[in-house]
Amino acid sequence: MMSVEEDLFSKLRMELRRGNLVLAVLAALKSEHYGYTLRKVLAEAGLDIEEGALYPMLRRLEAQGLLMSEWREEDKRNKRFYRLSRDGAVLLDELTAEWRAINGALKKLI
Amino acid sequence: MMSVEEDLFSKLRMELRRGNLVLAVLAALKSEHYGYTLRKVLAEAGLDIEEGALYPMLRRLEAQGLLMSEWREEDKRNKRFYRLSRDGAVLLDELTAEWRAINGALKKLI
Repeated sequence: MMSVEEDLFSKLRMELRRGNLVLAVLAALKSEHYGYTLRKVLAEAGLDIEEGALYPMLRRLEAQGLLMSEWREEDKRNKRFYRLSRDGAVLLDELTAEWRAINGALKKLI
Repeated sequence: MMSVEEDLFSKLRMELRRGNLVLAVLAALKSEHYGYTLRKVLAEAGLDIEEGALYPMLRRLEAQGLLMSEWREEDKRNKRFYRLSRDGAVLLDELTAEWRAINGALKKLI
């Protein structure tokens, strides 16, 4: 039954990561990044995220008005640079406050 | 457009809470509780959760083998008491380690 348990752990870990990753991405994009450097910043902080998960999330957050993006040439290659929009900054503050509250609660319970 | 932004904040806040709530519930059920006292423990730690969200979550976690439950009479009323199963305890340890890793990363980014 090991694989069933592993599947369940994967599922719950995914749920735990999903909401926190949005917060991490918004926080990281206070500074402008393109995909590669953003993944590097997240990985250096300890959050590995697949390109196949990160890029759809960036497009979704931009469609929601939380990010702005711009194509620019750098080192002779066109790259899409992302950064937090003004609405994104407001939402980041709100989510950060929520995260602190949840974290305070979890520290008491664990 | 205020309501659109509020909806989006609600949605992202829900995503942030969802995974963390499972962890909080598993951690709280290291001690046995029935619904009412469990909600009280969570609320005292700072996590308010509606009955309509908590009870389905408890049933789901029990169906997944992470919780055990037992009906017992207390104060002349039948109550369903929940506590962590052995598998639930293993999973709680794994999720706690994951939570610490995500948290460490978020602290660096925020």
